[in-house]
Amino acid sequence: MRMALGVAYDGRAYQGWQSQPSGQTVQDKLEAALAAFSTVAIHTLCAGRTDAGVHGLMQVVHFDTEIARDAFSWVRGTNRYLPPDIAVQWAHDVPDSFHARASATARRYAYIVLESPVRPALETGRAGWTFRPLNGDAMRAAAAHLLGEHDFSSFRASACQALTPIKTVRRIDITQRGAYWRFEFEASAFLHHMVRNIMGCLIAVGQGLQPPEWLIEVLAARSRDAAAPTFAPDGLYFLGPVYDPAWRLPTAVAGYDWLP
Amino acid sequence: MRMALGVAYDGRAYQGWQSQPSGQTVQDKLEAALAAFSTVAIHTLCAGRTDAGVHGLMQVVHFDTEIARDAFSWVRGTNRYLPPDIAVQWAHDVPDSFHARASATARRYAYIVLESPVRPALETGRAGWTFRPLNGDAMRAAAAHLLGEHDFSSFRASACQALTPIKTVRRIDITQRGAYWRFEFEASAFLHHMVRNIMGCLIAVGQGLQPPEWLIEVLAARSRDAAAPTFAPDGLYFLGPVYDPAWRLPTAVAGYDWLP
Repeated sequence: MRMALGVAYDGRAYQGWQSQPSGQTVQDKLEAALAAFSTVAIHTLCAGRTDAGVHGLMQVVHFDTEIARDAFSWVRGTNRYLPPDIAVQWAHDVPDSFHARASATARRYAYIVLESPVRPALETGRAGWTFRPLNGDAMRAAAAHLLGEHDFSSFRASACQALTPIKTVRRIDITQRGAYWRFEFEASAFLHHMVRNIMGCLIAVGQGLQPPEWLIEVLAARSRDAAAPTFAPDGLYFLGPVYDPAWRLPTAVAGYDWLP
Repeated sequence: MRMALGVAYDGRAYQGWQSQPSGQTVQDKLEAALAAFSTVAIHTLCAGRTDAGVHGLMQVVHFDTEIARDAFSWVRGTNRYLPPDIAVQWAHDVPDSFHARASATARRYAYIVLESPVRPALETGRAGWTFRPLNGDAMRAAAAHLLGEHDFSSFRASACQALTPIKTVRRIDITQRGAYWRFEFEASAFLHHMVRNIMGCLIAVGQGLQPPEWLIEVLAARSRDAAAPTFAPDGLYFLGPVYDPAWRLPTAVAGYDWLP
């Protein structure tokens, strides 16, 4: 039987999603909890790996198991063995043809950035920070150049293992609430560091260091050297994958209502 | 010269506000940072002490100093020596007649509670949690019984050092946004644990364990035994003191826009 889980986590204490020998990753903690609950080793496959310090509001994983338990038992039982900053939000049995990564038609991320002369305290790690004011219109004009299908090589980390740098960016929404800026991204898929590299460029435009049209050049260069430095992971949230409604998986994202 | 500072902090890592021999309190960290910046010992006096785990959005302190620096130097200089989860938000010089505690005409607190069948992950320590649904109308009816001047002995911790249990509750607003409930309190002053003890009672009413009128009994009993258990500090925020506008201190509360 194949099971899918929705998982929320605060990424600050972990070395990213993907399992490492240190055991200090979200995947390691999740698989240890699944093993403790089910008494057998369980290997999970996720919809989108996240970097160290990046939070997950609805990471989705799948795994195969012989163990028959009702869905909510997987939630409650696994959460008993997870640290307080990781929690399974839902569990569903799915057809064997479902694949957390391959079935995803899109991924969504949000970046929260505090604009303030003073550094954050309560928002540390949960929001990026700029003491220079940002120009929303300039950033929106810059973001428009990235929409659609492009070769995103300029925004790709050297370690990226994706088969192709061609991705489709469907949506970049930039809004402001109080002192917080919110950048919401949706794309067919993201290259390694692609969101953080795009953010570095949008912030450079927002701070007036580059004009919006600079993004056309950066995109055309197809070289990482053309873009701004990778933006910090602080304030980056993986909102989760998008699946065909036919899979009948939950779409409500826990914690989404709390983002500014 | 007397200086006033507005301070924001995440209370999770600290044993409350007030200085202790362990040095693991917000006051200890603040005074160590002030000493590191100014090179002299500085003793601060705060508007309202907070318990271990309680966050401060705008704690206000005052201190006297011979050191003349422009106000923003105090902010930037002190923040350099503070841990990432504490930050001075503003500094103002004030007349010697200003007193962070005595000049405050009211205090404000907010409690954020997640209503969900599943425990929180990203909200751990920043929101309380109830898996039972809450009835907003019942809680609002219960809260109405607490408004005005009353003897709040039933909501007072035994360690409370206040001169009188008689306080005036001016406002209790209960609102809901998505999965989050927000309880906002304003009173002339709060007894030790008063907000947390009131919350325990409101949650008991919200969960249907007691009727709204039970609060009349609890109040009349003037005994701690009459009330519900003290609610957890998770999700409690000190929004700050209220001062006469004549002091010309900032009223905008950093981080307030982020609360659901």
